[in-house]
Amino acid sequence: MCAKSVKKTVPAKAKVTSKAKRTKYVYFFGADQSEGDVSMRTLLGGKGANLADMAGLGLPVPPGFTITTEACAKYYEIGEKALHDLIRAEVQAALKRLEKATGKTFGKGPNPLLVSVRSGAAASMPGMMDTVLNLGLNPDTVEAMIARTNNPRFVWDSYRRFIQMFGNVVLGVDHHQFELELEAVKRAKGYTLDSELMAEDLQDVVSRYRRMVKETKGCDFPTDAMEQLTLSISAVFGSWNNPRAIKYRELNDIRGLLGTAVNVQAMVFGNSGDNSATGVAFTRDPSTGEHKYFYGEYLINAQGEDVVAGIRTPQQITIKGSREWAKARSITEAVRKAQYPSLEEVMPKVFKQLDAIRVKLERHYRDMQDLEFTIEDGTLYMLQTRNGKRTAAAAVKIATDLIKEKLIDEKTAVMRVEPSQLDQLLHPVFVKSAEAKAKRITVGLPASPGAATGQIVFNAATAELWAKEGKEVILCRIETSPEDIGGMNVAVGILTARGGMTSHAAVVARGMGKCCVSGCGELHISYDRKTISCGKLVLKEGDWISLNGSTGAVYEGQVETQAPKLTGPFATIMALADKYRKMGVRTNADTPRDTARAVEFGAEGIGLCRTEHMFFEGDRVTSFRRMILVAETVKHLRQAIAACTDADADERARLESELAAPLKQYNQALKELLPLQRKDFIGMFKALKGRPCTVRLLDPPLHEFLPQDAAGQAEMAKIMEVDLAYIQEVVESLHETNPMLGHRGCRLGISYPEVTEMQVRAICEAAAAVKGSRPEIMVPLVGNVKELAAQKELILKTVAEVEKAKKVKLQITVGTMIEVPRAAVTADQIAVEADFFSFGTNDLTQMTCGFSRDDAGKFLGDYVSRGFYDYDPFQVLDMEGVGRMIEIAMNYARGVKPKLKVGVCGEHGGDPKTVAFCYKLGFDYVSCSPYRVPIARLAAAQAALRS
Amino acid sequence: MCAKSVKKTVPAKAKVTSKAKRTKYVYFFGADQSEGDVSMRTLLGGKGANLADMAGLGLPVPPGFTITTEACAKYYEIGEKALHDLIRAEVQAALKRLEKATGKTFGKGPNPLLVSVRSGAAASMPGMMDTVLNLGLNPDTVEAMIARTNNPRFVWDSYRRFIQMFGNVVLGVDHHQFELELEAVKRAKGYTLDSELMAEDLQDVVSRYRRMVKETKGCDFPTDAMEQLTLSISAVFGSWNNPRAIKYRELNDIRGLLGTAVNVQAMVFGNSGDNSATGVAFTRDPSTGEHKYFYGEYLINAQGEDVVAGIRTPQQITIKGSREWAKARSITEAVRKAQYPSLEEVMPKVFKQLDAIRVKLERHYRDMQDLEFTIEDGTLYMLQTRNGKRTAAAAVKIATDLIKEKLIDEKTAVMRVEPSQLDQLLHPVFVKSAEAKAKRITVGLPASPGAATGQIVFNAATAELWAKEGKEVILCRIETSPEDIGGMNVAVGILTARGGMTSHAAVVARGMGKCCVSGCGELHISYDRKTISCGKLVLKEGDWISLNGSTGAVYEGQVETQAPKLTGPFATIMALADKYRKMGVRTNADTPRDTARAVEFGAEGIGLCRTEHMFFEGDRVTSFRRMILVAETVKHLRQAIAACTDADADERARLESELAAPLKQYNQALKELLPLQRKDFIGMFKALKGRPCTVRLLDPPLHEFLPQDAAGQAEMAKIMEVDLAYIQEVVESLHETNPMLGHRGCRLGISYPEVTEMQVRAICEAAAAVKGSRPEIMVPLVGNVKELAAQKELILKTVAEVEKAKKVKLQITVGTMIEVPRAAVTADQIAVEADFFSFGTNDLTQMTCGFSRDDAGKFLGDYVSRGFYDYDPFQVLDMEGVGRMIEIAMNYARGVKPKLKVGVCGEHGGDPKTVAFCYKLGFDYVSCSPYRVPIARLAAAQAALRS
Repeated sequence: MCAKSVKKTVPAKAKVTSKAKRTKYVYFFGADQSEGDVSMRTLLGGKGANLADMAGLGLPVPPGFTITTEACAKYYEIGEKALHDLIRAEVQAALKRLEKATGKTFGKGPNPLLVSVRSGAAASMPGMMDTVLNLGLNPDTVEAMIARTNNPRFVWDSYRRFIQMFGNVVLGVDHHQFELELEAVKRAKGYTLDSELMAEDLQDVVSRYRRMVKETKGCDFPTDAMEQLTLSISAVFGSWNNPRAIKYRELNDIRGLLGTAVNVQAMVFGNSGDNSATGVAFTRDPSTGEHKYFYGEYLINAQGEDVVAGIRTPQQITIKGSREWAKARSITEAVRKAQYPSLEEVMPKVFKQLDAIRVKLERHYRDMQDLEFTIEDGTLYMLQTRNGKRTAAAAVKIATDLIKEKLIDEKTAVMRVEPSQLDQLLHPVFVKSAEAKAKRITVGLPASPGAATGQIVFNAATAELWAKEGKEVILCRIETSPEDIGGMNVAVGILTARGGMTSHAAVVARGMGKCCVSGCGELHISYDRKTISCGKLVLKEGDWISLNGSTGAVYEGQVETQAPKLTGPFATIMALADKYRKMGVRTNADTPRDTARAVEFGAEGIGLCRTEHMFFEGDRVTSFRRMILVAETVKHLRQAIAACTDADADERARLESELAAPLKQYNQALKELLPLQRKDFIGMFKALKGRPCTVRLLDPPLHEFLPQDAAGQAEMAKIMEVDLAYIQEVVESLHETNPMLGHRGCRLGISYPEVTEMQVRAICEAAAAVKGSRPEIMVPLVGNVKELAAQKELILKTVAEVEKAKKVKLQITVGTMIEVPRAAVTADQIAVEADFFSFGTNDLTQMTCGFSRDDAGKFLGDYVSRGFYDYDPFQVLDMEGVGRMIEIAMNYARGVKPKLKVGVCGEHGGDPKTVAFCYKLGFDYVSCSPYRVPIARLAAAQAALRS
Repeated sequence: MCAKSVKKTVPAKAKVTSKAKRTKYVYFFGADQSEGDVSMRTLLGGKGANLADMAGLGLPVPPGFTITTEACAKYYEIGEKALHDLIRAEVQAALKRLEKATGKTFGKGPNPLLVSVRSGAAASMPGMMDTVLNLGLNPDTVEAMIARTNNPRFVWDSYRRFIQMFGNVVLGVDHHQFELELEAVKRAKGYTLDSELMAEDLQDVVSRYRRMVKETKGCDFPTDAMEQLTLSISAVFGSWNNPRAIKYRELNDIRGLLGTAVNVQAMVFGNSGDNSATGVAFTRDPSTGEHKYFYGEYLINAQGEDVVAGIRTPQQITIKGSREWAKARSITEAVRKAQYPSLEEVMPKVFKQLDAIRVKLERHYRDMQDLEFTIEDGTLYMLQTRNGKRTAAAAVKIATDLIKEKLIDEKTAVMRVEPSQLDQLLHPVFVKSAEAKAKRITVGLPASPGAATGQIVFNAATAELWAKEGKEVILCRIETSPEDIGGMNVAVGILTARGGMTSHAAVVARGMGKCCVSGCGELHISYDRKTISCGKLVLKEGDWISLNGSTGAVYEGQVETQAPKLTGPFATIMALADKYRKMGVRTNADTPRDTARAVEFGAEGIGLCRTEHMFFEGDRVTSFRRMILVAETVKHLRQAIAACTDADADERARLESELAAPLKQYNQALKELLPLQRKDFIGMFKALKGRPCTVRLLDPPLHEFLPQDAAGQAEMAKIMEVDLAYIQEVVESLHETNPMLGHRGCRLGISYPEVTEMQVRAICEAAAAVKGSRPEIMVPLVGNVKELAAQKELILKTVAEVEKAKKVKLQITVGTMIEVPRAAVTADQIAVEADFFSFGTNDLTQMTCGFSRDDAGKFLGDYVSRGFYDYDPFQVLDMEGVGRMIEIAMNYARGVKPKLKVGVCGEHGGDPKTVAFCYKLGFDYVSCSPYRVPIARLAAAQAALRS
């Protein structure tokens, strides 16, 4: 058979077991005859179900039939031939019925029936799968059509289009080869435009097409209509698994479908003359959600593909729309009327009919619709309706409008907005027209959304300096490290040459809600020369660039931005979300500014305040480093002293005298840090206005606080007035093979109890200073209840001391982060000592899956694309694995302490799927970065409504 | 009060809740009056229970009373004063009874009662806690004693001893201070020996002691006997938690005890004249277990401490023993009889009585006893009996002898040998006398037991070269890496300057059963100069050294070794172990030689054959490296090709042509490796003679196979004829932040399926070549069932291909290692695809606890000593955490597949506690290094007998 070979791979999750009962694979639709309806979307696909439904509503739908998605699954299960054997009788019966309904005959006769063959899955995948139009044409039917329409140009053009589409889609002949033939004819005739081709030229094109196909494929272009149909059905089913479609489903998170349905529908022709047309329309504006006029475009004498192809300029449907369109393009009313009149003006009757259908469909589906229609010789036909895709702004606007219009209730409105889409509304964005005109340098990873425009700086110090002078800066680094925090904080955007979506830069930037583009491999950043080069372009310090953190685009120069609006429909939807959600939403924030922003976004407290970021600012890093330089010495000497027996009095004395100097430095450094930390917490508690604040004690390994590069070490040696060799020695001694599993978290607090004590004292003194503060002290990286018990004892002792000194009674609880698998499986023991749990899903994922976030890039992408994991487990919680670990921990913990407060912090807290999972497990709250708080609020509401 | 201050820390696990019922704290013992018996060991301690028991048996035991271990717990719970308030009445009543039993009066009267105050916990802790003898002496009782004994020297010497002991133990006065006073008197008199001191000199010493104590402590030495007793009881209770005792319990794994009991016993005096003596004895030889004669020592006119102190030479108990002793020292029979006569000769009647008691006690306790006795004026008193400590050789000898003597049954004999002790019997050891004479250079960590003597070499290549020439070499490295495997394999011993008990050198050496001393920090190894220096000593290549891997000692020169004997009593005990155990024991082995040895040690198959070691030998490392150099390129290009859509035909062609060269190199390297791997497996399968063999597919990250140092890289570049820069680039690209969580295990097999295929093909072809082979293919580091399913599909396909090509039917199963926490919590899914599970407890511990084995040294020692973990979790399975993870996995897995075969491999498989745990969970087998196989067999038998 003359068809493209099709891979017989079975699509994942699509195994269909044979049923004893005879299955119906073909469903007819058409006025009064529809066998399907809107509830059969899974079986008939969205398009098929809606066509049946529209026909049932009495709308003018060309009749046809749908071959089900189950047939598609069968196609992959039993193969192409067996599938056709299975459905042949049903297809033929449906064709008969179609001939009767249209009064035409398929592939022959004086009034030949032509059909379209289109894909249509349960989820919309526009343009991803194959379509064949004008099927049924062959030399005989062409002749009959010409006789009937007296429009040879239209018929030959239709035939040409059919051969081209079928040839490409079904037979696998390259587009390019068709274009060569068409060009040859045009060149011979001296034409430049397709529209110059006359009927006989098109007849020539058809002959050339058929010859070329025969030469390429070694067999004649099929003339038998039934053969054409059979091959086309196979091709559409086959296109379900073309790489483009697979990629689209992956990107749009479309899962668990059987396959696509195939819709075979009687052709109507928008290209049969000037009384014909074709168009697409939205019942409301899909980009703003506004309802000003009927939003859509059409073309006279055209087939559907022409509207999309961009060769001719589509015209507006309404007069109002047409005038606005012309105004934006400075087209005079006269020119508009002459060249781009609206459908309302050209075919007022048809327009009225279409407008009535619009209202009817929107009321019927209670949502904004995306329509396709064709007008054949003045008669309107509806070819498709579906819920229209829309921007986040449109989604909230439409949802709230539909409540007002009493089409939907509040709960439905809450379910209508996709939480992850909200991100679009929360960050500054580029003014669209400005971005379109900007000069793009490169595209990196969209690491943290939003738009930023600023002057290039190459280090944190310059960033801070320039920011103080009131400049807007973009911090450009090869990669960032914790030392850059200060600079990142003052920059308007961050750009890195290396590092993925979960690199330091990306994670911190998302936390700050700051625009970030990471991993721009094409950029060469030179710290020495202070330049960024990309190809021939070289930018230097102080030059302006602009970043689109939502797309990863990097632009030269300044691009105009606009601020997000958190009022209006957005505020309405968020208020409804809060009304219906039951789980709390907190934020991860480390500064008063982030805290204030998160509260503005609706955060009900802080779920994770990372105290280590506080050690990087200004002079305090010097104090902290001074402590680190002697910390290990202090620890070793103390251990040696503790090991002395009564008999070792001399040795003990020697060790104690040796300890004196480093211990003094150690205590001095902590003493310097105390007031600074206290000030930090005072700021946080003030911003929270009585909301709770989970403060995590020092977590990262100490080596992260020391410069790893020679230059940084030399600078540090100079500032601290110590030998460079000494610093190198400490850096060396702190080096770890697997820092993820190293000396960090509460292991530091156990080794250096004075650090815990200093932090707790700062928290308590701040709480005493700010009335109504509710700190919750969180001990990180606990794997063993005894670690928590030891730290808790120290914490409570310190709390009591401050309470006594300040003569106050503080509201303080002590809990732990569950992020080590051992903590999860011994959660019953740990719960006894903990006032609360917060699941640190980032590290829990790393240790549960055995994935180092820094290294997993080597295989994780592959794992996701092969379906080992449904999503990147660092983006969406791996529910099967890490989720089960959490469930095990929850069961153990709530088993001994049913009211234990449980939350989640970490990147996953802002992911809607994870939020739903946490709700199901009975979490008290989720915590996420400030900019994801609204997303979490909405996701939590939806989870509550779904359950 | 004039006492050393005692820390009031509550000992771990020793909290005793107050009971409403009145508790009895004091138990009397003595002829016909004993309130306790041998069953009350926990309450009365070993010494107290046995004293009561011996008295009950009618043996001559001086009467006394025991203050219980519960009182010790109370001491720590309620403090010293409250404890004495609690027990005072009982103590006074017991004293009254003791006065009556002895006819003496405590602290006064013409016949004063003196007592000893001794510690005695439920587990024996010889010499670790405090003892006070001669308590009750004061100026009045001294006078009375002199009047009564007419032996003023004896009485003043007793008083001197009492003040010295009490002063040190109870009052905390340094030993040294007493020595100074004694020396002063001796100097004044011109004496050199203590024995020259006359009664009046000793009286002078007593005066000086009392004055010195008063000056030092600021109060008089107590003369009131009751005060002396009260303070001594406190001191003994306090000594339970002295650092020495804590350390001893830690080292000897003594846990869960309440504390020590205190035994107050009427004094009998072995130092009251030449008709008095004191001694210790074992009922059989504790070092060989032989039963040739009554083994023990005694001293005339001495107190117990003198026997141990080593000032006088103790004499033998029997004539036979005495003659052997003299012969070994070339002492003539005449001299022996005159100076070192046996007890049998000196006091034949007492000897007979003692010998009868020996037989009685051994029959009573059905075990070898360790006795203490005193003879006062010709009367024998038994002061202690306990099960004697013994070497492993003695343990197996005694256990098998006792079966023959019908004192115990087989099961009891199996329980009598401590499994971990067997290690002593399995390795070559130094001839004791030779080791005693050898010159010790330094002491490192006892990384892998046994003794070795050989010539120093500094790299693997030289080791292999010299070994081929028949030399015995010791490989000396700063640290070892996988590249050194070949050299380690041929060396008789391994010495490293860096690295702990679980360093590469230590782990590999233990696996090979090869002697290893690691972490000798004092040694400076120079590869350039080919020298080891330690202080002033410099050794060069070819010099002889000797290592004791059981103690960590390193000696200069050759030290004579002897081979282990696996026959006789050892074989008997092992046969009994096999008779009673129910769980299988396999071995971890990678070479035919190790396999053969393990089979000799009783291994029932291989539980873990690591294939990566096979890639290091000889030329194959070059082939493997050639593969690595292009592996990533091949992977990237393939991914890019797979991502091409139909439209990208040109790009695809370009990528495919780019792929050709690296793919050729990749396939060529694998082709070279196949026959080499096949040969490895043939050797293994032959050595196994039909026993099963679990083969783990390639596991470590690829970077481990490339040299990380500049010199190695340069050499590799030269051998491979490629640019050094290219190699550096590949090394760089393979670098990982956390290699433990990186691109390794089955992740490699997924990225490079041809490697899996090559390995499986080699296994299958080897199995086809060796009849009866039973390979079990193990996929490492599975975290997700889909990884296993993908690898399994590839494995089964390859198996089928080989079966077809070789026309055989192979017995092959496919299973996985459970070492990632995610695998444990999704074990129900994984079990569906697996024929067997093997728990890889090393990595499971790392990921469950979040401990990097390479880095955890920074805090783990501290964690164990603080009791956060009972043992180092890399030595003994952390049952609470990792154990629970395993239990969860077992429940999930056996829930869906009740007969799933489950084993454990990794370091823990040879630890007796872990073996017992695995048996309890229903494991089918444990697998451990060859030299631990007997240990595991015995531990498994004991676990079965205990349950």
